Amino acid sequence: MRIAIDAMGGDNAPEEICLGAVKAAQDYPNLSLILYGQADQIKPYLAGQDLANLSVVDCQEVIATGDEPVRAIRKKKDASLVRAARDVKQGHAQALISAGNTGALLAAGLLIVGRMKGVDRPGLMASLPSIQDLDKNWLLIDAGANADSKAQHLHQYAIMATIYADQVLGLSQARVGLLNNGAEASKGSKLTQAAHQLLAQEDQINFIGNVEARDLLNGVADIVVADGFTGNAVLKTIEGTAGSVMKLLKSTIMNSGLSAKMAGAMLKKPLKEMLQHVDHDQAGGAILFGCQAPVIKCHGTANRQTIYQALLQTQDMLAKDISQSMALALAASLQAAKEEE
Amino acid sequence: MRIAIDAMGGDNAPEEICLGAVKAAQDYPNLSLILYGQADQIKPYLAGQDLANLSVVDCQEVIATGDEPVRAIRKKKDASLVRAARDVKQGHAQALISAGNTGALLAAGLLIVGRMKGVDRPGLMASLPSIQDLDKNWLLIDAGANADSKAQHLHQYAIMATIYADQVLGLSQARVGLLNNGAEASKGSKLTQAAHQLLAQEDQINFIGNVEARDLLNGVADIVVADGFTGNAVLKTIEGTAGSVMKLLKSTIMNSGLSAKMAGAMLKKPLKEMLQHVDHDQAGGAILFGCQAPVIKCHGTANRQTIYQALLQTQDMLAKDISQSMALALAASLQAAKEEE
Repeated sequence: MRIAIDAMGGDNAPEEICLGAVKAAQDYPNLSLILYGQADQIKPYLAGQDLANLSVVDCQEVIATGDEPVRAIRKKKDASLVRAARDVKQGHAQALISAGNTGALLAAGLLIVGRMKGVDRPGLMASLPSIQDLDKNWLLIDAGANADSKAQHLHQYAIMATIYADQVLGLSQARVGLLNNGAEASKGSKLTQAAHQLLAQEDQINFIGNVEARDLLNGVADIVVADGFTGNAVLKTIEGTAGSVMKLLKSTIMNSGLSAKMAGAMLKKPLKEMLQHVDHDQAGGAILFGCQAPVIKCHGTANRQTIYQALLQTQDMLAKDISQSMALALAASLQAAKEEE
Repeated sequence: MRIAIDAMGGDNAPEEICLGAVKAAQDYPNLSLILYGQADQIKPYLAGQDLANLSVVDCQEVIATGDEPVRAIRKKKDASLVRAARDVKQGHAQALISAGNTGALLAAGLLIVGRMKGVDRPGLMASLPSIQDLDKNWLLIDAGANADSKAQHLHQYAIMATIYADQVLGLSQARVGLLNNGAEASKGSKLTQAAHQLLAQEDQINFIGNVEARDLLNGVADIVVADGFTGNAVLKTIEGTAGSVMKLLKSTIMNSGLSAKMAGAMLKKPLKEMLQHVDHDQAGGAILFGCQAPVIKCHGTANRQTIYQALLQTQDMLAKDISQSMALALAASLQAAKEEE
């Protein structure tokens, strides 16, 4: 079981990426990790460690945050991300992790690792907090891998996310909701109306119908299926609004006289704890589903702890062979649709 | 200048609707208002008033919140909303206001009042707070009148919202942003890419390019143009997230011991003031642009003050004849496009 890690992606690369990998390699001797990146920059963080299950693949190029994704993937043949993705494609590793340029990682997943059979367009799954129950997350797919989606893509996302929830999160019968502009089945765009039909007919998922954006943080569904454009807008709106309200709260406290300031000081600790729950960085990486191997996107601000968690999460997915389960479920769904006809 | 008011729409109808109208009629003798609804229910709130500029049109049917919009509009011919819309269509009134069923109001605007020349699909404009500057709102259009949009619809929204910002809000050169999943012009869905081109070529607006959902509450643009499906999702996500964070804040305070509770009590007043700023009810009604007359949607929870404000806002729009300005600007845009060819 080998995981390919882009050591050069993310705000804190390569240091935090390497230190997270080192800890995972130490704690889990059965795990095999490969760090891709500029060896002279990586080696200092491995100094003194002699880990048989952690190797380095030296590559000179780096894809920057601002690089145009598809172009970067095509031109920078020796980039850490490209080399890592190619090794996954060739079977030298079984999963790909990066905290770098999201678009480039998605492009690497689609164009280098390649699509899984039965999947038209891989979709990005993000994990978000539920305010109702802070220990429970809900899943949003597609959170932005695609700008234009079709109904059958949403259908495929629902199946893949259900497998993930069942096998990795231990959540059987995960409630699947379709993000729509109204609760009734007749509501929505042409796309969501068509997707609603497909989801309602799918035996392998627990479809609860349409859900509205207003209710997402209340945990109205375990899995929320959306087209990538809307999913991305909703994800960014949640981040932006939560951040804005907290900023406003701070400035309100600071500008409301001495007693408010004192009150603010008294609330510092509980507020900090609350923020940690809301912070979706803590919930682990986003995952691109539908490629021939799991492709994991860690947040750009990922630190060693985030990377460590993502590696454990990936190890778990590989141990349970969820790619295989997804492929089987997608094939079963296609088969059932054919028999309908 | 006459405004047709659906007295039966909204959670607090007819009482609060009538009382808001009475106050506006008292304060502005030049304003002429018509209340549509069940006269026996309306009359008690007008008792003792003898206002020459406030009349009642008795109609027996009412469209309920749960009614299927288009069907209700077609079947309930004597509903307050339908009668009011018909009178606007026939020129007996110049604007339509309701706090009732949103879908029904949109349908009444489109199917009864009718489209303005040069507009393919009317769009709903919501006014939202900017956290950066609480006294300044930004406009979102289309906030959900349509589930499927085309690029030229977004183009028309940008023109109409610019006229509104200029003439009603006194904001010349309002910054128009296109809601998209990335800042670069090349980003986005087929729809947003096409809309970007149209907006960039339009001389009558101040187009600042793409804006991302994450930055909306920071006031990144004065006018945010979106397709109705995404606009609706973003609007509801903002509402849902702001509400969830405040709920979480409350429960955090209540569950964090005595000092946190005391701190919470000390913060009650500033927090309440803050919430009033964020509460988009305070920002006035949403407006459906692109009909032959302004159609104003007040929030379902509208009280007399909200209705009063909406009436003043509508009076202002009528005094400035923004429908005429919009029609001229749309015609000029079409002309310019023809000359291009």
